[in-house]
Amino acid sequence: MKMETKRVISPGAEEILGKKFEVLDKGFVRLVDCLGNDGAIVQAARVSYGKGTDTKRKDRTLIRYLMRNRHTSPFEMVEMKFHLRVPMDAWRQWIRHRTANVNEYSTRYSIAIDDKQETEPDKWRFQSEDNKQGSEGFLDIETGKYLSQREEELHNLAKQVYNERIEKGVAREQARKDLPLSNYTEAYWKIDLHNLFHFLKLRMDKKAQYEIKQYANVIGNEIVKKVVPVSYEAFEDYVLDVFTLSKLEQIAISKILNGADCEDISNELFENKYERQEFLEKFKRISLSSQF
Amino acid sequence: MKMETKRVISPGAEEILGKKFEVLDKGFVRLVDCLGNDGAIVQAARVSYGKGTDTKRKDRTLIRYLMRNRHTSPFEMVEMKFHLRVPMDAWRQWIRHRTANVNEYSTRYSIAIDDKQETEPDKWRFQSEDNKQGSEGFLDIETGKYLSQREEELHNLAKQVYNERIEKGVAREQARKDLPLSNYTEAYWKIDLHNLFHFLKLRMDKKAQYEIKQYANVIGNEIVKKVVPVSYEAFEDYVLDVFTLSKLEQIAISKILNGADCEDISNELFENKYERQEFLEKFKRISLSSQF
Amino acid sequence: MKMETKRVISPGAEEILGKKFEVLDKGFVRLVDCLGNDGAIVQAARVSYGKGTDTKRKDRTLIRYLMRNRHTSPFEMVEMKFHLRVPMDAWRQWIRHRTANVNEYSTRYSIAIDDKQETEPDKWRFQSEDNKQGSEGFLDIETGKYLSQREEELHNLAKQVYNERIEKGVAREQARKDLPLSNYTEAYWKIDLHNLFHFLKLRMDKKAQYEIKQYANVIGNEIVKKVVPVSYEAFEDYVLDVFTLSKLEQIAISKILNGADCEDISNELFENKYERQEFLEKFKRISLSSQF
Amino acid sequence: MKMETKRVISPGAEEILGKKFEVLDKGFVRLVDCLGNDGAIVQAARVSYGKGTDTKRKDRTLIRYLMRNRHTSPFEMVEMKFHLRVPMDAWRQWIRHRTANVNEYSTRYSIAIDDKQETEPDKWRFQSEDNKQGSEGFLDIETGKYLSQREEELHNLAKQVYNERIEKGVAREQARKDLPLSNYTEAYWKIDLHNLFHFLKLRMDKKAQYEIKQYANVIGNEIVKKVVPVSYEAFEDYVLDVFTLSKLEQIAISKILNGADCEDISNELFENKYERQEFLEKFKRISLSSQF
Repeated sequence: MKMETKRVISPGAEEILGKKFEVLDKGFVRLVDCLGNDGAIVQAARVSYGKGTDTKRKDRTLIRYLMRNRHTSPFEMVEMKFHLRVPMDAWRQWIRHRTANVNEYSTRYSIAIDDKQETEPDKWRFQSEDNKQGSEGFLDIETGKYLSQREEELHNLAKQVYNERIEKGVAREQARKDLPLSNYTEAYWKIDLHNLFHFLKLRMDKKAQYEIKQYANVIGNEIVKKVVPVSYEAFEDYVLDVFTLSKLEQIAISKILNGADCEDISNELFENKYERQEFLEKFKRISLSSQF
Repeated sequence: MKMETKRVISPGAEEILGKKFEVLDKGFVRLVDCLGNDGAIVQAARVSYGKGTDTKRKDRTLIRYLMRNRHTSPFEMVEMKFHLRVPMDAWRQWIRHRTANVNEYSTRYSIAIDDKQETEPDKWRFQSEDNKQGSEGFLDIETGKYLSQREEELHNLAKQVYNERIEKGVAREQARKDLPLSNYTEAYWKIDLHNLFHFLKLRMDKKAQYEIKQYANVIGNEIVKKVVPVSYEAFEDYVLDVFTLSKLEQIAISKILNGADCEDISNELFENKYERQEFLEKFKRISLSSQF
Repeated sequence: MKMETKRVISPGAEEILGKKFEVLDKGFVRLVDCLGNDGAIVQAARVSYGKGTDTKRKDRTLIRYLMRNRHTSPFEMVEMKFHLRVPMDAWRQWIRHRTANVNEYSTRYSIAIDDKQETEPDKWRFQSEDNKQGSEGFLDIETGKYLSQREEELHNLAKQVYNERIEKGVAREQARKDLPLSNYTEAYWKIDLHNLFHFLKLRMDKKAQYEIKQYANVIGNEIVKKVVPVSYEAFEDYVLDVFTLSKLEQIAISKILNGADCEDISNELFENKYERQEFLEKFKRISLSSQF
Repeated sequence: MKMETKRVISPGAEEILGKKFEVLDKGFVRLVDCLGNDGAIVQAARVSYGKGTDTKRKDRTLIRYLMRNRHTSPFEMVEMKFHLRVPMDAWRQWIRHRTANVNEYSTRYSIAIDDKQETEPDKWRFQSEDNKQGSEGFLDIETGKYLSQREEELHNLAKQVYNERIEKGVAREQARKDLPLSNYTEAYWKIDLHNLFHFLKLRMDKKAQYEIKQYANVIGNEIVKKVVPVSYEAFEDYVLDVFTLSKLEQIAISKILNGADCEDISNELFENKYERQEFLEKFKRISLSSQF
């Protein structure tokens, strides 16, 4: 149903408002409401810069300038509200982003949502050797089948136990105590665009956990990109695929520009092996970048 | 100009959107944008309460229940954005409310706003005797005339000095260093409804300073009341004109209900004179309340 | 081990620093560090009040004045850091207090803590009839025995499944997905005194869930009371056991003081049954208060 | 006076605790109290990483790893409290850092501090041509003398007017309305180390305004460096003198490494002149870096 408004409109937001984007096996994200658009960011920035602003400077140029120079406050002038369905395990990470407004489904007040995140036999991930908090590659299908079947057993027992407690009159706040972290929860989540970009920066990162990354990718690529296309493009160009160069890394590149060998100079400059590794990765990204 | 939207509408907000409400001699407040309405608060609360909610319970009843019991998170689901023009002195108090988004007019980037808050001869307030941080009553008109004239001298000199600096090429960031606190500034200010109610509670209070109170009254009575009428009514009934009763004050009232004299029991119970005074004021308010 | 310091000391804090206070079956709280004491609150308040302050005014009187009048910023000048072991279910509530610093044990990085909150047969709580999010009374012991045995089955299966996954090389971040909410986690939690009092106000309340209330009681009565005894006393007197009187409730008491019957006047004034009930409870508390 | 404590100690903090570091003509910063030290950061990080941590990994290596990878939460486990005297103009910028605790001297409650920031004749800064919000170079001494004398006139009149108002009984809250922004104020300011580093990153930057930069430099180099020397070194190496490389800038460097000319490739790649300029600056810094 459409209404008339004098508020500013984001045409992209209107297209997707309320649409459910499915994530994982039973989760979703949908944009419930939003305030502002790319123009609202420009408008707020121009309050700061006042009459002195060159009005011919294009909005896009201004937004990109703000993003590049980390002038974050105008991006706080846009707000988005989401409705989420997400496993509690991912929600535990999500809620660590403190500058946001939250209303979560209450399993004290209501019967718990009867959905758990299930794992397909070919989706059990190996512990990463390099990254103590990451995963890489998949277990073989036979082991996967066994693990998925055991997962099902556990989910079934957890469900039975929960239902028994409820039937016998146990308080919901206590009955829920053994729900698995894979149980889905729902929430309304409202956040300003600056803090949302920070969330996306961390959770779209390759080091982020697979599950929350799926949500972040959908929020970024399917929703934010539509609501504030110019800002999102600037975010991609100047924040998402960006890295920093420390003083030592600047020196290393300078030496390489002057003819030093990358391996040699890395060994010479970086006493810490992680730091050396990080530099080599960055240098590889630089070297490969011009091929795209 | 009106546009179509699928977002929720607050009819009251649409009426006043963009309208300048004048405050003090040269200040204003206007609502620039908002997200949500009374219904959005109910919607968020119902996510928390889930399927278990009695859907026949009326929205108004739910909102009043939430307000009465300080269930604050659903009120965070509404957001308002204001454009303000306010003396820097009042802004210094305003900005202490940290949970808000701000873009202030930059006097580093632009020439300072050439407006200062001026005081009419009959508006010079006496220092309060009781309240070390308050005022009460007005100075006589003759003294007031003198003070207003001196104010004008000072404003004129401050303006001359600022203009001289600018003309001679001094950086704006330095030229501004002697602007009086009465100089107007402008800002975009965005805040969620829960934190806005907290602002209003403190700044509509009788102990708030006159200047910021004028802004708070306009924001409360002319804007918020329109945007979320049901919530604002609940705020008035359960937050604004409310006071707390400490354990000792509960005992005092109990004794009075059993026949004790108010003065006697106050002297007996409250060793601290401020606390005694506060109780007597509360008791007076209770006694008078049924006459209205 | 003791060291010398020029920083201010809280003698009460020194007594209990590092001491483990056991909570629930396998949880604990301990104070790891703190900054400031009652005197630091007075010192900060006196910066605000400057030279004009009556230095003879006693510190205790000032702290009580600040608490009574909700001058909250001086209480932010004290900080406490805790080490907690707590079931994830309680932690899910805890973490909603956003103005705090947190480092939680990472089950991405390390093997999950092998402890779950277990329920004794006589500790299964009935769902409250009145309070949709509460509990009251206990199930009979026979049912309790059955539920505790089923709980044990579920905990055992959850443990087996987790261990199998780890043994087969599944990434820790995925292996943890079906840990029950009763699984213990650990965290460092750092918060200022104002926000800690807010936490205690909500979580020591009779409506708070049993589990988190045990933690709040220990933090309040065993730790904060020791670290800042004067402030904690003021908190008890002016915040913890306090209630508000709405405009309508003030009228009701006024009428009763003038001879009206409590039941009659409640029926007349409060159209909403919950509000009427709440008033009757408050009135009962007032009536009983002078007996203690 | 020294006391014994079981809390952790920062030897560097003990040396400077309470010491007044003078800033500008009449301002100062002093460290009033602090919680934690470099070890506290390690300790908090190890809670997150749990038993799985390689205990032989050196503390310094861990702190540097955390800083390099922007694992910010362990740095929130250290807290510092400062006493400041600062011109209101700089304070207006300072207070924009919202995640901090503040008690400011109240000119409602007390007579205003009778000190204003004064400008020496050779310290009047020119408006920068390039940077609309910056300054560069100084005005000639003759003009400077005139401006300093006019400044004095204005300060004198402002002082007279303020004193007249106070003498005639005007409320302090109103009398202060025309104090110049150069008037000093005082505050207690408490902040965690992560947010303090963010403050320093922005305010030690070459684009920060001269006045606040003096405070930031003192806080960074004289205080934080003493309290948490290892963390501060990591901050300098991985945050302070660091810059980001956008995707486009990575491509540019890649092309230069393959023989392209810097000027040519910049013109080709960067359509926006500011972005091109920024790249050229970064490239210059890289080129020069190996000379130091």
